[in-house]
Amino acid sequence: MPVVVTDIERTDEAIVAGFATIAVATVHEAQGRKGLLASHMRPVYRPAHIAGTAVTCSVAPGDNWMIHVAVEQCRSGDILVVAPTSFCEDGYFGDLLATSLRARGVKGLVIDAGVRDAADLTEMQFPVWSRAIFAQGTVKETLGDVNVPIVCAGQLISPGDLVVADDDGVVVVHRDEASDVLKKSRKRMEEEAGKREKLASGVLGLDLYNMRPRLAEKGLKYIKRADQ
Amino acid sequence: MPVVVTDIERTDEAIVAGFATIAVATVHEAQGRKGLLASHMRPVYRPAHIAGTAVTCSVAPGDNWMIHVAVEQCRSGDILVVAPTSFCEDGYFGDLLATSLRARGVKGLVIDAGVRDAADLTEMQFPVWSRAIFAQGTVKETLGDVNVPIVCAGQLISPGDLVVADDDGVVVVHRDEASDVLKKSRKRMEEEAGKREKLASGVLGLDLYNMRPRLAEKGLKYIKRADQ
Amino acid sequence: MPVVVTDIERTDEAIVAGFATIAVATVHEAQGRKGLLASHMRPVYRPAHIAGTAVTCSVAPGDNWMIHVAVEQCRSGDILVVAPTSFCEDGYFGDLLATSLRARGVKGLVIDAGVRDAADLTEMQFPVWSRAIFAQGTVKETLGDVNVPIVCAGQLISPGDLVVADDDGVVVVHRDEASDVLKKSRKRMEEEAGKREKLASGVLGLDLYNMRPRLAEKGLKYIKRADQ
Amino acid sequence: MPVVVTDIERTDEAIVAGFATIAVATVHEAQGRKGLLASHMRPVYRPAHIAGTAVTCSVAPGDNWMIHVAVEQCRSGDILVVAPTSFCEDGYFGDLLATSLRARGVKGLVIDAGVRDAADLTEMQFPVWSRAIFAQGTVKETLGDVNVPIVCAGQLISPGDLVVADDDGVVVVHRDEASDVLKKSRKRMEEEAGKREKLASGVLGLDLYNMRPRLAEKGLKYIKRADQ
Amino acid sequence: MPVVVTDIERTDEAIVAGFATIAVATVHEAQGRKGLLASHMRPVYRPAHIAGTAVTCSVAPGDNWMIHVAVEQCRSGDILVVAPTSFCEDGYFGDLLATSLRARGVKGLVIDAGVRDAADLTEMQFPVWSRAIFAQGTVKETLGDVNVPIVCAGQLISPGDLVVADDDGVVVVHRDEASDVLKKSRKRMEEEAGKREKLASGVLGLDLYNMRPRLAEKGLKYIKRADQ
Amino acid sequence: MPVVVTDIERTDEAIVAGFATIAVATVHEAQGRKGLLASHMRPVYRPAHIAGTAVTCSVAPGDNWMIHVAVEQCRSGDILVVAPTSFCEDGYFGDLLATSLRARGVKGLVIDAGVRDAADLTEMQFPVWSRAIFAQGTVKETLGDVNVPIVCAGQLISPGDLVVADDDGVVVVHRDEASDVLKKSRKRMEEEAGKREKLASGVLGLDLYNMRPRLAEKGLKYIKRADQ
Repeated sequence: MPVVVTDIERTDEAIVAGFATIAVATVHEAQGRKGLLASHMRPVYRPAHIAGTAVTCSVAPGDNWMIHVAVEQCRSGDILVVAPTSFCEDGYFGDLLATSLRARGVKGLVIDAGVRDAADLTEMQFPVWSRAIFAQGTVKETLGDVNVPIVCAGQLISPGDLVVADDDGVVVVHRDEASDVLKKSRKRMEEEAGKREKLASGVLGLDLYNMRPRLAEKGLKYIKRADQ
Repeated sequence: MPVVVTDIERTDEAIVAGFATIAVATVHEAQGRKGLLASHMRPVYRPAHIAGTAVTCSVAPGDNWMIHVAVEQCRSGDILVVAPTSFCEDGYFGDLLATSLRARGVKGLVIDAGVRDAADLTEMQFPVWSRAIFAQGTVKETLGDVNVPIVCAGQLISPGDLVVADDDGVVVVHRDEASDVLKKSRKRMEEEAGKREKLASGVLGLDLYNMRPRLAEKGLKYIKRADQ
Repeated sequence: MPVVVTDIERTDEAIVAGFATIAVATVHEAQGRKGLLASHMRPVYRPAHIAGTAVTCSVAPGDNWMIHVAVEQCRSGDILVVAPTSFCEDGYFGDLLATSLRARGVKGLVIDAGVRDAADLTEMQFPVWSRAIFAQGTVKETLGDVNVPIVCAGQLISPGDLVVADDDGVVVVHRDEASDVLKKSRKRMEEEAGKREKLASGVLGLDLYNMRPRLAEKGLKYIKRADQ
Repeated sequence: MPVVVTDIERTDEAIVAGFATIAVATVHEAQGRKGLLASHMRPVYRPAHIAGTAVTCSVAPGDNWMIHVAVEQCRSGDILVVAPTSFCEDGYFGDLLATSLRARGVKGLVIDAGVRDAADLTEMQFPVWSRAIFAQGTVKETLGDVNVPIVCAGQLISPGDLVVADDDGVVVVHRDEASDVLKKSRKRMEEEAGKREKLASGVLGLDLYNMRPRLAEKGLKYIKRADQ
Repeated sequence: MPVVVTDIERTDEAIVAGFATIAVATVHEAQGRKGLLASHMRPVYRPAHIAGTAVTCSVAPGDNWMIHVAVEQCRSGDILVVAPTSFCEDGYFGDLLATSLRARGVKGLVIDAGVRDAADLTEMQFPVWSRAIFAQGTVKETLGDVNVPIVCAGQLISPGDLVVADDDGVVVVHRDEASDVLKKSRKRMEEEAGKREKLASGVLGLDLYNMRPRLAEKGLKYIKRADQ
Repeated sequence: MPVVVTDIERTDEAIVAGFATIAVATVHEAQGRKGLLASHMRPVYRPAHIAGTAVTCSVAPGDNWMIHVAVEQCRSGDILVVAPTSFCEDGYFGDLLATSLRARGVKGLVIDAGVRDAADLTEMQFPVWSRAIFAQGTVKETLGDVNVPIVCAGQLISPGDLVVADDDGVVVVHRDEASDVLKKSRKRMEEEAGKREKLASGVLGLDLYNMRPRLAEKGLKYIKRADQ
C-alpha cells in the first residue's frame, strides 16, 4: 500500500547548518568510511555543495508521478532524494519541478535516475546529483512511497537523515549520528588545515605522518637502478 | 555498393528556424516521446543547442574517410550525422574537419563514436554530440554511404530529417512530421511558461495539474509516523 | 619484494619542453598511432594540458600508501603516474597530496583509479586525469613499487618516459623515442596549420588531400535520389 | 562498532519450504513487483534454484574476513547474503568456504561481489549468485557486521528474511510478508498452469486475457500494407 | 498512431530454408560485413541456431502488451523481433509467451531487452536472444507497433526480413537481398570446408592464403632475439 | 617497425607441466596476488583449464592479419596471447584458426577482443578466453608485432611467459619466476587439501585459522538482538 508519511523527524537544523562548508570526503571519513552513494551519482554542474535533510521518494521506472507528491512534503532546508524501484535513466526531473522545489526552499535533488533541462538547472543554479542527463520523458501512472526508508544508489536513506553532496559525490549520515559526525568532521578539517600548510611548504607526507619506520618494517627497499 | 546521394530533400528552412529555441525534451514530448538518440550521446561542451537538417554518413569502425566525402554534401543549416557500422570510440573528427564544416555553414556534428581536439572544438564553439572524447586516430581505407538512411545511437535518421540537440541529448524528427511537431512544441512551451510562473509563486503541481483526486482513487494514503 | 628506484633516468628536459604546446592527438599520430591510455582516462577539469616525465607508482586496490612514498621521488617537471593492481574507483588522491606535489613542481597526476576533492583540484588548477571522481577513502596498509615499469590504463609506462595529457586523453612516449616523436609532431603541426587555413577558406578536404581519384577507384558512386 | 547478532529471528521453516518450487519471477510478481536484486546478480551455474533464510554479512572491499565469522552464524536452511561496502569484483568466496557452508546445511550464497573456484562450485553443485567470477584474492584485515540489515545489489535485506534465487535472479521477501507472498505465489502458479495449457493448444493471449476491447479503446489499428 | 500491419511480405520460404545450417558469421561476411545486431545480444542457452522471417514489434519500456498483439501476427517459420523504444532490461517474455509462440510454429525470439523464465526456456529449447535475463516484471498499458520497420540493437529490421541467430549473435538480411546472400554464403562455406581440411593437415594460413609477399611488401621483419 | 621474433625462450617444459592441475586462483595467490588479467576475460565454454607458454601478438583494432603470422611461431605447448592496440570486440578468431592452432599442438587462445564460431570452438573443445563472443568480421590490412612484450587485459606478458587459464580467469607468471611459483602453488594446494577435509567435517574456519583472538582484539562484539 503506497503511503506518504507527513510528519517526519528531521536532523536538527543547527547540526545541518554545521555541514554547510564540510566536504563529502570529510564526512565520509569522519563517520568511518561509510554512507557514500555509488560513484555513478554525479552533479549536473560543478562546483556545487549542499547539506540538508532527506525527504525520500520511491518511484516506478519511467514514472515521475510521486515526485509531484513529494514536493508538498518538502520544506526549507530539505533535499529531495529519489530512487526508482528498478534501473532507469529517464529524465524524471526538469526545470518546472526545480522551480517548484526552489519556491519551497529546497536545497537540491539527489536521484538515482536521469534528469533533463540540464541547461536550465545550471542557469538557475539548482543543484542536482543524478545517474544520467537524458531528455527521455516519464509518465504519471504508478504510485510509490514518500518518506519511507529507501535504497538510493546502494545506500539506505531514511526520511530526515542528513545528506551532503558535492563534486565528489553524495553521502548520507543517519539522523542520530549527525551530531557526532559533525564533531569528528570539524576535528578532521582542523587537522587537515595544519597539514596543508606544512605540505605546501615542502614537508613530505612521509615525515608529517611519520610513515618511514612502518614502511621499513613492512620491507620497503630503496634501491639504485643498477641494483635492480 | 557505396553511394553518395547528391540531391536530398531537406526539412523546410522556415520550419527548422522555428526549432532554434526549442529544447530537445520539448520536441521529444511533442512528437509522442519518440525519436531520442541513446543517452550516451553527450555534448562536448555545455551549454549548446542546435537545430538543423541531417546529412547522414555511415563509416567503417576506425575509418573516417567518408566524413570527408560527406562534408561536400553539407550546406548551410545542415547537421552532419555520422554512425559507424559497429561500436567504435575512436576520434573520427577534430578541429580540421570542424573548420571545414564551419566554412560551409554547418551547425554541428552528431556522431555515435569518438571525437578529438575537444579543447579546440570548445574554443571554436563548434557544437558536437558524441559517444566519447578520445585521441585515438582513424584511417582512410573503407567506403561507406552518404545521404542514405542510417541507424545512429538507436534511431533511424534519413537525410533531410530535422535534428535538434542540446544539453539533454539529441532527437530526430522525420521530415514530414516536422511542421506538426513544431506546432505541438510551441503549444507545449506556452503552457509551460504559464506553469513555471505559478510554480515559482508556490502553487503546487498537485493542485496545478489537479492530481489529488486521481492519487486518492489509486489508493495513496497520507499517514502520521506513529501510524506506520 | 616492493622497491623504490631512486635514480631513474628521465627524458631530456629540453625535449619535454618541446611538447608543451603539442596536442595528445598529434603525439599519438606522430608516433604511429600508439601509446594512448584507454578512453576512460578523463581530465578532472577542462581545458588542461601537461607534458612531463613519469614517476610511476603501483598501488594495492583501495590503498594509497605508496603515493606518499612516490611523492618524495618526484621533482620539478615530473608527472606522477599511478596504477592499482586491480580495478578500483576509490578516491586515492585529493587536495593535500596535490599541495605536496605542487610544492615539488610536479606538473600533474595520471591515475587509473578515482580521485577526490575535485572542487579543490579545479580551484588550485592542479591537472589530474583519472578513471573516476569519487569520495571513497583509502587505507595505508600495503606496499607497492615506485619507479618500476607499470601498466596504466592499458599502456606500459616506464619511469622517465614522456607523458602528455590534454582534454582528449593521455599518451605515453618511450624515453628513447621522445626526440624523434617531437620532430614528427612538429612537422605534423606545421602541415596542419596550412591545411586549417585552406579549409577555413572553403577548400574541401576531398581536394586538399586529393581523395577523389582513390574514392572513384574504390567504386564510390554519386547518384541522384531518383536513381536509388 | 562492528557487531555479530547471534539470535536472529528467521522466516518460519514451513513457509520457506513452500517456496522450494516457486520461481523468482512468480515471487516478485506476487509481492507487487518489488524485492528484486539488480540484474547483474547472476548464477555461477544453471539451472539452480534455492529458497532460504538470510544470514547477512557486510564486508570491506577486497576483504573476506567477515565471511568466516558469518559462517558460524549460519544453520541448516540459511542462505548467506554478502555485500561489500563499496563496489568490488574480487573473488571473496571459493570452494573451501563452500565446503564449510555445505557442512552446516546452508543452501547457497548471494554476494554482490566476485567469487572464485567456479569449476569446483559447479562440480559440488553449491549454488552461488554473484556479480562476477574472478580469481582475484582478498585479505583479512577489516571488520564488518553480521546479521544487521544490509543493502545488497540495491535491496535492503534483514537477517531472517526469505531469499529466493534462480536462473532469473534473486528476490528478497521481508519476514513478516512471507506467508502472504506464499499464498499469492501459489495462486499465481495455479492460474498460470491453466493458461499454459490453453496457450499450448493455440488459444491466443489476446483472447485468453480478453485484451481486444481495451486495445481497440486505446486506438490500436489493424491495417493492410497498402494502406500505410 | 499505433498500427498492426497484417499482410506483410516475407522472405521466400525456400530461401529461408537454405540458411538452416549457415552460421551468422558466414551470413555477415557474405553480405559485406553488415547487418549484425550489437554484441550485447546473447542467446539464453547454447548451442542454438535459427533462421526465419521477422515479425517486428516495438514496445514501450517496461511494457510487454504489444508482444501479445504480435503473437497473433506470427506464423510458422517466423522469428519475433522486439525492440523497446528506450533502454530496458525488464523481463518482457517468459515461458507462457514461449508456449504460445511455439504453438504457432515460431522459431524463436530476438529482443533488445530482458527475458525471464530462463530455466523453462532452456528446458523447452525455445531459442531466445536477449540483452539480459532478469525477473523484473512488465505492465500492459501502452500501445506500440507491429510489423513496421524497427531499430533493434542498432540494426534496422523490416517485417519479413530474414533473421539468422546463433551462438555468435544475430544478423538481419533484407528481404530482397536474401537470395543473393544465400548464394554467397554457400560459396563461402564450400571454400572454408576445403581450407579447414588443409589447415588441419598443418598447412599454414600464411601459405594457404599466400600472405607472405604482401606481408614483406608492407615491411614485416623476422628477427632473432639477439637482434632486437 | 613491425617485427616477428623467431627464437623466443620459453618457460621450461617440465615446469609448465607442473601447472596442469593448478587453479588460476592458486597461482595468483602463490605469486603474491599479482598477474591476473582483468575480470572481463571469460572462457568461451566451461569447464576449461590450460597452462602453457605465451606466444604474443599485437593486432590493430578490427584487423586479424597478424594472428595468421603468429600461428607459424607457435609450437606444441604454447598459448597464443593476442591484444588489440585499442578497444575492440570484433570476432578476430574462429574455427579455421583454431583448426590451424590445434594442428600445431597449441593449447588455447587468450585474446582481449572478440572471437566467433563459439559453437564450433565448444564442439572442438578448443579452449579460448576472450572479452566477447561476436560475429563481427575483421580485415587484413595492418601489421603488428609477434613475440614482443604486450599489454593484454591490463597485464604485461612477454613471449615465453607461463600463462594459466581456467573458469576463474587468466594469470601470467613471468618466465624466471615460474619455478618458484610452482613450488609455492603446490605447497598451497597441499595445505588446502587438509583444510578442505576439516571444513567438510564441520570444523569452523574461525577455529581452523585461529581467527578468534585477532577478531576480539580488533573489537568485534557478539550481541543479542535485544541488545542492539
